[in-house]
Amino acid sequence: MYTSNTNIRIHYALTDQMGVVYYGNYAQFYEIGRTEAIRQLGFSYKDLEVMGIIMPVVETNSSFLRPAKYDDVITVKTILQELPIAHSIIFYTEIFNEANKLLNKGSTTLYFIDSITMKKVNMPDFFLDKLKKYFK
Amino acid sequence: MYTSNTNIRIHYALTDQMGVVYYGNYAQFYEIGRTEAIRQLGFSYKDLEVMGIIMPVVETNSSFLRPAKYDDVITVKTILQELPIAHSIIFYTEIFNEANKLLNKGSTTLYFIDSITMKKVNMPDFFLDKLKKYFK
Amino acid sequence: MYTSNTNIRIHYALTDQMGVVYYGNYAQFYEIGRTEAIRQLGFSYKDLEVMGIIMPVVETNSSFLRPAKYDDVITVKTILQELPIAHSIIFYTEIFNEANKLLNKGSTTLYFIDSITMKKVNMPDFFLDKLKKYFK
Amino acid sequence: MYTSNTNIRIHYALTDQMGVVYYGNYAQFYEIGRTEAIRQLGFSYKDLEVMGIIMPVVETNSSFLRPAKYDDVITVKTILQELPIAHSIIFYTEIFNEANKLLNKGSTTLYFIDSITMKKVNMPDFFLDKLKKYFK
Repeated sequence: MYTSNTNIRIHYALTDQMGVVYYGNYAQFYEIGRTEAIRQLGFSYKDLEVMGIIMPVVETNSSFLRPAKYDDVITVKTILQELPIAHSIIFYTEIFNEANKLLNKGSTTLYFIDSITMKKVNMPDFFLDKLKKYFK
Repeated sequence: MYTSNTNIRIHYALTDQMGVVYYGNYAQFYEIGRTEAIRQLGFSYKDLEVMGIIMPVVETNSSFLRPAKYDDVITVKTILQELPIAHSIIFYTEIFNEANKLLNKGSTTLYFIDSITMKKVNMPDFFLDKLKKYFK
Repeated sequence: MYTSNTNIRIHYALTDQMGVVYYGNYAQFYEIGRTEAIRQLGFSYKDLEVMGIIMPVVETNSSFLRPAKYDDVITVKTILQELPIAHSIIFYTEIFNEANKLLNKGSTTLYFIDSITMKKVNMPDFFLDKLKKYFK
Repeated sequence: MYTSNTNIRIHYALTDQMGVVYYGNYAQFYEIGRTEAIRQLGFSYKDLEVMGIIMPVVETNSSFLRPAKYDDVITVKTILQELPIAHSIIFYTEIFNEANKLLNKGSTTLYFIDSITMKKVNMPDFFLDKLKKYFK
């Protein structure tokens, strides 16, 4: 299992008139969590795009347990439960507040796509190699 | 079954550097679809809030089949498959492009909450009454 | 002078915890107003991009007089006060609520840029021709 | 003069199909810069709201010199050039990339408003006291 944590401070733009974070904005927290999970492996999602691989989201789901609020510092925990095989990768996300209460959890499935041909490709070997040590 | 259609034109803010609509923005399309589905029953979600009932999202999921693009006019089809019972309501959403291709589908579960006590309440009777004729 | 009106319904995502539209979201209303002002001339901003011309914003300013609120239908009035010359175009925007009260006004300056060379270019002739009849 | 710096990493949601940060998203950077400028004085904007003071934006302007791009870490420099008097405060903002190039500059005027009466009030004394040492 590979796990990564990232902190995000909630700014005003993310709230709505219920006085909490708008439900649609959690997708951004998931994205930031995934990006930092990759960066902590030693390269960046941006590097992947420069190499000609993009990772569009094909499926996401999210459960809202408690609201995140303005100025909260949330912790986005991003988890790979299994070593990805072939062209697909699933990130699990759990979001906690400063009192370590679980606010939200969900998962996101992305494909590896060649940005020229727009066809599915396997996860690059150097990505797989970075992950292998977490799964044995 | 109750079904409602709404059209949305994609503006620049909704796109990202992949040249398609950012995955997190579909939650807004789902929201607009739900709001217009309620309005077409003869009242508005705003009316509900004025009456002291808010409807936070507790769960959502979404599958991305084809990308929506800048300046597309998408059709958001919002469906109630079952008459809601008690404090919970599930909206199904299907999003089509102008060629009637399915771009995205998903569902969203919301609770009816008293905005003073913040406790779950049953769907208001007048809301239920408006829906009954679609389910027999 | 060339003037165009567009209506926008305020959805939940656009509000913040002050119970009004977040100040940063007016830029989207300005954008939609500009886009529809161009469309009402008989072509689209998307057409311009396909032709290899992009129009990045180089300057914007905005005054907030009264708040827009959830579920309001605002009218975005977009105005060209002068026939653009050379590579620059200024759109003035005024936003009204349903009671015809002015909520917000501002202006945005954009450049015409060749999307290959990324150099400034003059406004295309067919664009200028569409506008000329409004300025004499 | 009072100056504060904050860093922000650009995530995907902030980009648009021009491959740069959408112009409307700079308002969020300005907001985050203002919030952190206040926090670095020893209290938070959230504290002000709890005390019954809100600070709506009444005017903003912004010049776009160079684009911010995906995964850039930008530095938001927030400046008070003058000690605020009465009910109004002007924050100047300059945004730099990692090469210390100026990407964007602008200013934002906010009012101090009593959240109950919705009337203008003077800047609270404790806020003024925190600032005085920077202006002599």
